[in-house]
Amino acid sequence: MAQKPSIPKGTRDFSPVEMLRRKYIFNTIERVFQKYGYLPLETPAMENLETLTGKYGEEGDRLIFKVLNSGDFMQEVRDKWDAKYGSGPVEATADVIRDMRALALDVKASQVTEKALRYDLTVPFARYVVQHQNEIAFPFKRYQIQPVWRADRPQKGRYREFYQCDADVIGSKSLLSEVELVQLFDDVFTALDLQVAVKINDRKVLAGIAEISGQPEKVVDIVTAIDKLDKIGQEKVEEEMRAKGVSNEAITRIAPLFALRGTWAEQRPQLEQWLASSAIAQQGLKDLDFTFANAGTLHNARLEFDPTLARGLDYYTGAIFEVKALEGSLGSSICGGGRYDDLTGIFGLKNMSGVGISFGADRIYDVLLETGKFPAELGGSTKLLFANFGETEALHCLKLLRQVRESGIAAELYPDTVKMAKQFKYADDKGIAFVAILGENELKQGIITVKDMKSGEQRAVKEDELITLLS
Amino acid sequence: MAQKPSIPKGTRDFSPVEMLRRKYIFNTIERVFQKYGYLPLETPAMENLETLTGKYGEEGDRLIFKVLNSGDFMQEVRDKWDAKYGSGPVEATADVIRDMRALALDVKASQVTEKALRYDLTVPFARYVVQHQNEIAFPFKRYQIQPVWRADRPQKGRYREFYQCDADVIGSKSLLSEVELVQLFDDVFTALDLQVAVKINDRKVLAGIAEISGQPEKVVDIVTAIDKLDKIGQEKVEEEMRAKGVSNEAITRIAPLFALRGTWAEQRPQLEQWLASSAIAQQGLKDLDFTFANAGTLHNARLEFDPTLARGLDYYTGAIFEVKALEGSLGSSICGGGRYDDLTGIFGLKNMSGVGISFGADRIYDVLLETGKFPAELGGSTKLLFANFGETEALHCLKLLRQVRESGIAAELYPDTVKMAKQFKYADDKGIAFVAILGENELKQGIITVKDMKSGEQRAVKEDELITLLS
Repeated sequence: MAQKPSIPKGTRDFSPVEMLRRKYIFNTIERVFQKYGYLPLETPAMENLETLTGKYGEEGDRLIFKVLNSGDFMQEVRDKWDAKYGSGPVEATADVIRDMRALALDVKASQVTEKALRYDLTVPFARYVVQHQNEIAFPFKRYQIQPVWRADRPQKGRYREFYQCDADVIGSKSLLSEVELVQLFDDVFTALDLQVAVKINDRKVLAGIAEISGQPEKVVDIVTAIDKLDKIGQEKVEEEMRAKGVSNEAITRIAPLFALRGTWAEQRPQLEQWLASSAIAQQGLKDLDFTFANAGTLHNARLEFDPTLARGLDYYTGAIFEVKALEGSLGSSICGGGRYDDLTGIFGLKNMSGVGISFGADRIYDVLLETGKFPAELGGSTKLLFANFGETEALHCLKLLRQVRESGIAAELYPDTVKMAKQFKYADDKGIAFVAILGENELKQGIITVKDMKSGEQRAVKEDELITLLS
Repeated sequence: MAQKPSIPKGTRDFSPVEMLRRKYIFNTIERVFQKYGYLPLETPAMENLETLTGKYGEEGDRLIFKVLNSGDFMQEVRDKWDAKYGSGPVEATADVIRDMRALALDVKASQVTEKALRYDLTVPFARYVVQHQNEIAFPFKRYQIQPVWRADRPQKGRYREFYQCDADVIGSKSLLSEVELVQLFDDVFTALDLQVAVKINDRKVLAGIAEISGQPEKVVDIVTAIDKLDKIGQEKVEEEMRAKGVSNEAITRIAPLFALRGTWAEQRPQLEQWLASSAIAQQGLKDLDFTFANAGTLHNARLEFDPTLARGLDYYTGAIFEVKALEGSLGSSICGGGRYDDLTGIFGLKNMSGVGISFGADRIYDVLLETGKFPAELGGSTKLLFANFGETEALHCLKLLRQVRESGIAAELYPDTVKMAKQFKYADDKGIAFVAILGENELKQGIITVKDMKSGEQRAVKEDELITLLS
């Protein structure tokens, strides 16, 4: 008896019902991406190791899945050893030992692996833009929906393989892109029937706060600490700043940040005054003005200024976004994004400003499931099952089946002549809406009995009425 | 200056225009899969190494991409070494040397890697079925469209990462599935506007031929040789059989195979007579009768019996399929498939008969490109670009843009105020159909000048006529 098969920890199979739900999310987002002029891109799962290393910090580097070079590299080492010393006894001098140790252990990393699985879609996107810069029509609006892999410790809601779903426009500094992305968020969540808050801030405002604190050189520590406000509260944020060498005076100067409340219009004058001496903050405020003024009437999204929104460190330099669901119990954000001034610099192409957003498909899935927002009838489900009463009836059904399918309705014929109970169970398990019963009697009379699996109602129709009934 | 970035050999980036074409193919196939009651499944890119090894033959095993365990396993070896002997000098006895060599070199494969990238979709599917057998409603009809990875030597048309596109029904022996799959092929290629030959044979007929040859034990060698007929011709096929120990007498008995010509109806009586003494061949012929009798009128597909079709060895036991394009210059097949009696046996679940097909997306892509069969307007392309004449005009366009998008039309506003030539080039490069020109004059008059990028024609319309013009 073979062992019961399993999959690597942190990875998932997606069953048909999960897939139909996932497709509903991805298709909805993709349709909106396309409506906004973003075009699809795909990059290979494997990138050269050098493309990825050094881009995600020390911790990130450790989480990159490396792919073994083909060939048995340990065999190579064994061969080298045997070539030098043979497999027989050798005189064991200290030199020989040192040499053998070196030969055996200093397997160069590049002999073992030179490819790795992508860790996100952003670095491959930057690599693509630089590599294909002469073929691309800038500003380049692309979306990308592909899995990424991280050797993270698996835990609830954290997987080693998961899809990212990104849209970026690169090669333009225009704030119209920020406005567009706010509207895009609104369009997606309106289509998904979910109320959300789109939180916005600007890194220039945060830089300005560091500036007026008197310790602008501590901007990274200040932003990193503020970023945790949601999770740890003001007191702990100030503690962390203090630990990082931010002075008490600076912390006092930063404190007004935590007292800010209300709408953009309400906070705007206070910010104007508080950050009056910082030119960069003033620019950030003006940029935010533009987005608030031009986003227009939104449907399911509520655009909110959040001065404590920081979104890690990353590469953001301008606007930053975060989306939170206003329904369901999920605390964490379901989308993020922001503007960066130099994404492609790491690959030698300077001055490419861009702005991008990312949808967290797994989290959106959880929220929609919890709030019952998935449509009752998901695209792709089978609508009609012809029950199988024997070869004569089945072959007759086969002809009707063809007509039903040609009219665009997803349908099938149960392939085997088995008990009705089993066939109905199949329809039930698969969520099929209708079962067509066409036994000897029906065949004689030229009718079909159609059972609505939800209501249990049965109805006899003429064969040529079947499609109308289902449409 | 950073190095120009690149991707691993044998892998590909798919640009937006390539992606839109690929999506057209995948979406077409997927729509038909769903119409036939097949539901989507996805399995993780990484499988446990033991799930994959031993399933693809010795050569296949070598081509599996293995993923390195996280952590520096060589460091572990170094640590063990140092723990035992320290890093200082040791007395170099032969024992010590032997021990050190073992410690250093016998890195167990499982320490290095225990996960691998999937090599095809069939083995993960079998693994899924066995693992989830208690949750699945059998017969299980699933489709799966995901990339697979093979460490093959890259060459023209052969990649190290490529998509497979499979549909299988497992858990039924009914020949209705074979009929359905022929109709499914026809539906897909009718939708893709491509004329194809769907070639069919049955492994039972081939087994019968081996039987009547007098050397039934040579069935594998006989089938393997016959499979090459297309490429090497009858003489070489017979030579190969001879080399494998098939007797001249047996080869003479097999020879009528190569003389068979004509339609199923024409060949059927000859086969009946020639294979009269083989019960298994007779069963194969009866099964083929069923498929030919019930496939119905096909549109773009021509169903052809091909007695020399063998499709490698694999796991096929009944019907085998192959699809070839009747247009374009591609010689090789663009789809394949067949019935298997024991796909899940490798994972301990016996008696699961099924039948499946696979679409070769890369080859279908090449044929459609060569024959000009891709639609002029691919779904997902942007239809309208609003040119940008400055902030006032742009902000006005932003409002119109929103209306256009809300009507479902993909549109965008050029984000920067740059020369018209550059904006038109952008529209051209991106294949955008229309450019909306709304400068100072148009703004005053409440009109828009719309340029058809294909014909070059310009037309002034009122703002509220814009959507009608584009629909």
